[in-house]
Amino acid sequence: MLLAHNLSNLWSSLIIDELIKSNVVDFYISPGMRNAPLVNSLLKRDNVNLYLGIDERAQAYRALGNAKGTGRTSALICTSGTALANYMPAIIEAKKSFIPMVVLSADRPIELSTSDANQTINQVHFYGAHVRADACLGAPTEQIEPHIVRNTVNHLIFRSLYPTKGPVHLNIPLREPLDSTKAPISESYIERARETFKILLQTEYLAPLQSLSSEVVDKISDIVKHSERGLLVIGQLPSSMDKSKIKAFIKKLNWPVFLDISSSLKYSYSLEDNVIPTFDHQEVYDKVLENIPSTIIHLGGRTTSKHYYRFLSENPLIKLISVNWSDQKEDPSQNTDIRIVSHVDQFCLQLTEKLQQSCSPIKVDWKEFVQKKEEVIKNSPLCYPYISKSIIENIASDTALYISNSTVVRAFDNYISTDKTKEIDIFTNRGVSGIEGLIASTIGCAEGISKFTTLVIGDISFLHDLNSLQMLKESKAPVCVVLVNNSGGGIFSLLPIAKDKELLPYLTTPHELNFEHGAKLFNLDYQRVETPTQFDEVFRESQKVKRTKIIEVIVDNEKNIEIYNLLKTVKL
Amino acid sequence: MLLAHNLSNLWSSLIIDELIKSNVVDFYISPGMRNAPLVNSLLKRDNVNLYLGIDERAQAYRALGNAKGTGRTSALICTSGTALANYMPAIIEAKKSFIPMVVLSADRPIELSTSDANQTINQVHFYGAHVRADACLGAPTEQIEPHIVRNTVNHLIFRSLYPTKGPVHLNIPLREPLDSTKAPISESYIERARETFKILLQTEYLAPLQSLSSEVVDKISDIVKHSERGLLVIGQLPSSMDKSKIKAFIKKLNWPVFLDISSSLKYSYSLEDNVIPTFDHQEVYDKVLENIPSTIIHLGGRTTSKHYYRFLSENPLIKLISVNWSDQKEDPSQNTDIRIVSHVDQFCLQLTEKLQQSCSPIKVDWKEFVQKKEEVIKNSPLCYPYISKSIIENIASDTALYISNSTVVRAFDNYISTDKTKEIDIFTNRGVSGIEGLIASTIGCAEGISKFTTLVIGDISFLHDLNSLQMLKESKAPVCVVLVNNSGGGIFSLLPIAKDKELLPYLTTPHELNFEHGAKLFNLDYQRVETPTQFDEVFRESQKVKRTKIIEVIVDNEKNIEIYNLLKTVKL
Repeated sequence: MLLAHNLSNLWSSLIIDELIKSNVVDFYISPGMRNAPLVNSLLKRDNVNLYLGIDERAQAYRALGNAKGTGRTSALICTSGTALANYMPAIIEAKKSFIPMVVLSADRPIELSTSDANQTINQVHFYGAHVRADACLGAPTEQIEPHIVRNTVNHLIFRSLYPTKGPVHLNIPLREPLDSTKAPISESYIERARETFKILLQTEYLAPLQSLSSEVVDKISDIVKHSERGLLVIGQLPSSMDKSKIKAFIKKLNWPVFLDISSSLKYSYSLEDNVIPTFDHQEVYDKVLENIPSTIIHLGGRTTSKHYYRFLSENPLIKLISVNWSDQKEDPSQNTDIRIVSHVDQFCLQLTEKLQQSCSPIKVDWKEFVQKKEEVIKNSPLCYPYISKSIIENIASDTALYISNSTVVRAFDNYISTDKTKEIDIFTNRGVSGIEGLIASTIGCAEGISKFTTLVIGDISFLHDLNSLQMLKESKAPVCVVLVNNSGGGIFSLLPIAKDKELLPYLTTPHELNFEHGAKLFNLDYQRVETPTQFDEVFRESQKVKRTKIIEVIVDNEKNIEIYNLLKTVKL
Repeated sequence: MLLAHNLSNLWSSLIIDELIKSNVVDFYISPGMRNAPLVNSLLKRDNVNLYLGIDERAQAYRALGNAKGTGRTSALICTSGTALANYMPAIIEAKKSFIPMVVLSADRPIELSTSDANQTINQVHFYGAHVRADACLGAPTEQIEPHIVRNTVNHLIFRSLYPTKGPVHLNIPLREPLDSTKAPISESYIERARETFKILLQTEYLAPLQSLSSEVVDKISDIVKHSERGLLVIGQLPSSMDKSKIKAFIKKLNWPVFLDISSSLKYSYSLEDNVIPTFDHQEVYDKVLENIPSTIIHLGGRTTSKHYYRFLSENPLIKLISVNWSDQKEDPSQNTDIRIVSHVDQFCLQLTEKLQQSCSPIKVDWKEFVQKKEEVIKNSPLCYPYISKSIIENIASDTALYISNSTVVRAFDNYISTDKTKEIDIFTNRGVSGIEGLIASTIGCAEGISKFTTLVIGDISFLHDLNSLQMLKESKAPVCVVLVNNSGGGIFSLLPIAKDKELLPYLTTPHELNFEHGAKLFNLDYQRVETPTQFDEVFRESQKVKRTKIIEVIVDNEKNIEIYNLLKTVKL
């Protein structure tokens, strides 16, 4: 495992070994020359997963998807120059959504990078505040002991996990020779390097126990006890998190609950569990207002619904308690009363133990309302609400669902069943909610969790990430892509700005593409559907077969708008 | 032109007007909601060019291509969130190759961006040291006078041009309403804003005259006079620069000259002008060594040839004088003796006036050598040297040629004619020499210079930038794409590392794609060629017709390697 034919390869083998010992096993590689020693070191190892992809932007989202699915730190490897700049969007998404990743950027040595040699920029501290930590030891030298190389890597991986998860960056300048050419290294240095392979981990980092003091637990349970009306809201939670403690808390608290799609819990509950269907429908909004909660406990990150934050802003007297493990300011309505810095499951565990059965909550009967909406959707042509409903109802159990941004995520966020529940893994990119990298994220996720995964994505988002079809073809992880094509960014047609007709094309970017040829370019299985019945059939079949496929769903944007307008008229 | 229905639109109309007054007329827009007031202000103006594209990374390269062609500052407009992170690779390329661009990133106001509202990150000073300057005035307020908004924009554009050209960033937080909804503004503020529209430019920046002192001119001409043997090397020069002063200097100096492809001058000269064909062929290298120059004058930036820098490193006693207008360290061999900070054409002007006819230079007769190489190429199957030769010989006059990186640029850099010259505009992305964004760069360039442009690009680079075919389809600028498909990154097969067989696939990323379906997806004209004769015909035809088209040229990588090996054996 130790490579000793030249110093670039020796250090690379130390770095890779320490990464593996630190539980990093998924490596997303982009081609280049300078990073060859890192790749070479990986090729000598068993039990690592190597994924090759040419577009660094897509590879970074792919690594993000993997880490999101597994909760483990995933690694990115690229060459010098603009390569690592292409990682930037995914790095930002990872920072905001607490996903552990490590960028290993090969670099040219300092004497080249500071003199305008080809493919050089200043890569040191490249991501600035966008990563949790970074390091660079300079080019390999015998002046730096092998265990120091390891310790640097080791600590950096720890920093990708603590105090919160997030991206980190190791810049690795390497001198030639980069290939199998021999260049002398002192025997004693090689021996010292070899010795470090015998150690389990250079440093074992033991993080502090994170729990709530009894005073905090008492304080919150006291508030719960004295709350006349309560509402539980669950925003973004890590998809890889075990949700059992949260479910126990929901049960024990026994308050009405509003579940955001990014909580991954939405479809585990139905109206029968006293769930509030949405904040995005004015009728529902007004009804919640009639029974205005005196206390809201908000678990996890931001919700997708903007109207929930409008509700908070318009009702500043609600006692808002938010709970999340984060050092960032997470308070879009800017009126949180109590912020509890805690892992959500730890909070739930301690509160569940402490809480008395709370008062029987006010229940609103939403059943008829939801049934009326279902009726509209059932009889509609192909539109977003139909597609999301059909997918939730037909998706295979023990599979995963990746939901892209814009109209798609809102359609899924607004779905609620009167009585049925479903246990599926839900994934979204709601850190910064960009439209890029969704195909790549899904592939990485499927690779990480080893489950058949369905992606639902709009046409603009699909087009943005088009070259990821190459990795879709080459990946061993099966992914079903439901591509909703309404010939442009439909979300803007649903917003008030749609009245500015001259401006609208600059928001919606209309096009006339159908993506069959895109599938053919990469020799991918493809089917086009134009009616609801056809969609149901084709989608159900895909869930049986569980093979990689693109289903292009044609949505008439005008008709889609009509359905949205019709749904708005549904009364409670 | 003044929009007064709400403050977001009013400030946007001020910003856009001041940009136009500062000679910014090309706007590359990506869709979004937050940037709507900026787009809206643009729609009210004549004599501006608006280009829409969904992928911000590609749009940034497109704007780079435009600015490269015109020498003017081009503008990028995007929404908040990860959008501006996608610009990063092109920003870095622009900084390193001195291309003036301004990023106008719409942002959410500070109260949202600091509280984890959706689609927010800290956009202030986002690009750090990767831009020449940045500014952010916060969200529109009547507390800031209209002329101050203008002055900020005005100065920023000046900074994109002085002291050297490069990218700058204006972050623009905007509050709702963003659409045509009215929100009151005081009459007096509107009036003061209206007044500013009457002013030609808020501040007129007059940069200092940049010339060499007579002492410097004397010193250099004295060195020239006393140099036993001289060599003139011309590296990267701005494509948009008028080259007449440089040509006059070449003539007056009368030294052997080595022209890099990125000088844009390579094909304006032939062997008859005492040009050194290449440093990349060992025979030539050795011959130059036999007649080793005592002095080298290097004009402009870095050369593509790595062997030229090897030559400099191996011969540190050569007096190396380099001339370029840059505050960066440009010295890959790290043995420059005199660095003259001057615009290359100003240096040429002053030196041409001063120089006496220099001694008659040593001439090496390269003719037979070049003819032997031509003979090999003429009889070869489709390979890089054949393609570059055919393109140079057949490309239509008064058109432009955009050359992508990796094997492609090296093939063009090694072409030399015994007696023919050609005047075409040559473009490369040699700042950081990334493989991304080449299709987009070419489209932007063609849009900027309004000339039919041919792009030569490899398959990996093409795949990286695949979604730019959408803008190729929608752009009014005709571009001929010569896509050289050798099923992977062939450059690595030509390097010593090719002996590491296990590693090679991670460098070359082999694939079996043919891109006909890629063309069909976007309804683009396409032709596939597999023989030299076919290529000549199809390429000649494309130069007559001058319409947008993709020519996919199939190269067998093994045969290509054979030709390269054969060319290496050609003796002087």
